[in-house]
Amino acid sequence: MLIEPVTWRDNRLFIIDQTILPTTYREIPLDTLEAVWEAIRSLRVRGAPAIGVTAAFGLVVALKQQRPATVEDALQTLNEAVAYLAESRPTAVNLFWALHRMKAIAESNAAALTLDRFIALLESEACAICDEDKRCCRAIGDHGAPLIRPGFGVLTHCNAGALATAGYGTALAVMYRAHERGVPFNVYADETRPLLQGARLTAWELAQQGISVTVICDSAAAQVMREGRVQIVIVGADRIAANGDTANKIGTYALAQLARVHNIPFYVAAPLSTFDPALDHGGLIPIEQRSATEISHSFDCQTTPDGIAVYNPAFDVTPAALIHGFVTEKGMLRPPFDEAIASAFEQRQRVSA
Amino acid sequence: MLIEPVTWRDNRLFIIDQTILPTTYREIPLDTLEAVWEAIRSLRVRGAPAIGVTAAFGLVVALKQQRPATVEDALQTLNEAVAYLAESRPTAVNLFWALHRMKAIAESNAAALTLDRFIALLESEACAICDEDKRCCRAIGDHGAPLIRPGFGVLTHCNAGALATAGYGTALAVMYRAHERGVPFNVYADETRPLLQGARLTAWELAQQGISVTVICDSAAAQVMREGRVQIVIVGADRIAANGDTANKIGTYALAQLARVHNIPFYVAAPLSTFDPALDHGGLIPIEQRSATEISHSFDCQTTPDGIAVYNPAFDVTPAALIHGFVTEKGMLRPPFDEAIASAFEQRQRVSA
Repeated sequence: MLIEPVTWRDNRLFIIDQTILPTTYREIPLDTLEAVWEAIRSLRVRGAPAIGVTAAFGLVVALKQQRPATVEDALQTLNEAVAYLAESRPTAVNLFWALHRMKAIAESNAAALTLDRFIALLESEACAICDEDKRCCRAIGDHGAPLIRPGFGVLTHCNAGALATAGYGTALAVMYRAHERGVPFNVYADETRPLLQGARLTAWELAQQGISVTVICDSAAAQVMREGRVQIVIVGADRIAANGDTANKIGTYALAQLARVHNIPFYVAAPLSTFDPALDHGGLIPIEQRSATEISHSFDCQTTPDGIAVYNPAFDVTPAALIHGFVTEKGMLRPPFDEAIASAFEQRQRVSA
Repeated sequence: MLIEPVTWRDNRLFIIDQTILPTTYREIPLDTLEAVWEAIRSLRVRGAPAIGVTAAFGLVVALKQQRPATVEDALQTLNEAVAYLAESRPTAVNLFWALHRMKAIAESNAAALTLDRFIALLESEACAICDEDKRCCRAIGDHGAPLIRPGFGVLTHCNAGALATAGYGTALAVMYRAHERGVPFNVYADETRPLLQGARLTAWELAQQGISVTVICDSAAAQVMREGRVQIVIVGADRIAANGDTANKIGTYALAQLARVHNIPFYVAAPLSTFDPALDHGGLIPIEQRSATEISHSFDCQTTPDGIAVYNPAFDVTPAALIHGFVTEKGMLRPPFDEAIASAFEQRQRVSA
């Protein structure tokens, strides 16, 4: 079964509603800009690359919904939609990257095109972003697969899988590719409080592909490491600064520290669209604070007393010094990361120039 | 409000059912040995000292339930009940300590007493165990309170409070006493998956006493430390080996490692009844493995796919080297712990001799 959480079919945007997995698998259409915003905000679609792809299609949805009369109107609708979607979630840079890319192609082509062709161009660009993400994921899998050796225990956090991308995943792409090559290994999936993307999504994805997976509480990861069950940690990312500092789901920083204590290598798998070379270091990455009720009332059950304070940062930042390497579509980036990241971006600019 | 999770009133044993807190506060009677076993097993009553106290009263419940005809019959009932309750949970040593103490006093007095007096003696001994635990908790609070200085952030895990003891707590006793002395501080309570004793019980207890408390996901503790919000970590214990290795709720070991990385002192508060000088080191402590459904189907909601493997150790062992000190009723034990623990036990034996 091929898992594609974001698809464009018959001029409509569909997503798999990830808030109801693993017990219910349901695709839902997003026919308005507001529905796209809500789906991103409430994590029906989540994962940095998948958010970027959804936002790109979201702009096309806005154009089809608003039915502008002229290219100029269309450009204004687009710009308003860009500003609106940019407010949906603050941390994953792929959102801003995709919106910027769509806006740039719109602005540089608006003058030369009819309205129909203008909209068709944007639809085509969103599809390109989606297709490129799928190719990036495959390339990440190819570059990362040799990290996993036969018999390894692989620990991951949250979901950096097919569901977090246009398909195939980032951290999980490495596992999928190793599995396709016949390497036997077992994955330990942190359940990942508060929203349990590890238990609900990563376990579901891996099981679909026949990969052995064991779910643990986040707080058990250190013990699992100490018992010698883990030989490598591989996670995804929401934003990576120019020096390699990496924002990812809350709990990632703890894992990185614990991996170092136990002498276990710690890798981040992400496409270049997740890097933000404009930010010198991780301290500049905006960290989303989410609702207290994600912790106090999870899954329709009240688990803290009324009126208790809750601190719920959705992400943390892992310092580059704790990271052994970044698995990207351009290959493995090794320390010193500032140079490796700058070089990967120069290379990309030369190719696109 | 005085919180006493285990009480003996009008010849009956009552506990606060901790599985339904914080939304429902309910005392339930335990009128049969089987009900006592079930209450311990299913964590209606939990926390190493509270388990010990409940087990001691449980033996009296068994005697009143069975109505033995002779002291000899009573002794047999008692021995069977000891063996039965010893199977309820494997890790907390207070259970075995309390059962052994009750059995020892029964055996050394059986020959000299009438049946009524024999049962009265055991009832009185169970009450003594309960009262001593309360006094231990107060003494732990007195010895530990100076650890908390004005403005501190105090991180704790699981529930080592009044609910985990006969009253007043161990780790939380330190906080209660500091609060009574007028020291202002804020507690960060790990929610403590899978059963959320931190979110449900610790937050409830502390709020009852007017202490400022903020609930966080277990995986956020490292980030909270990194943000400089935590100046000390204080936890309870389920069993402490002769060298100071400490079994406590899963996640404690991770916290201890993370505290060391962030240069934050890490303390364990526990009565001597939680120490097991017969075990040389923590590797010998039996670790309870609990049901996968605690993780896969928490709070009546399925959060992992059908058929997924789950690893659910209820405890981990923190090496003594990560612990700054043990707050006991006999004062603070400092490294080298093997000597300090041996000395505390010699002192206790001299006093009781």
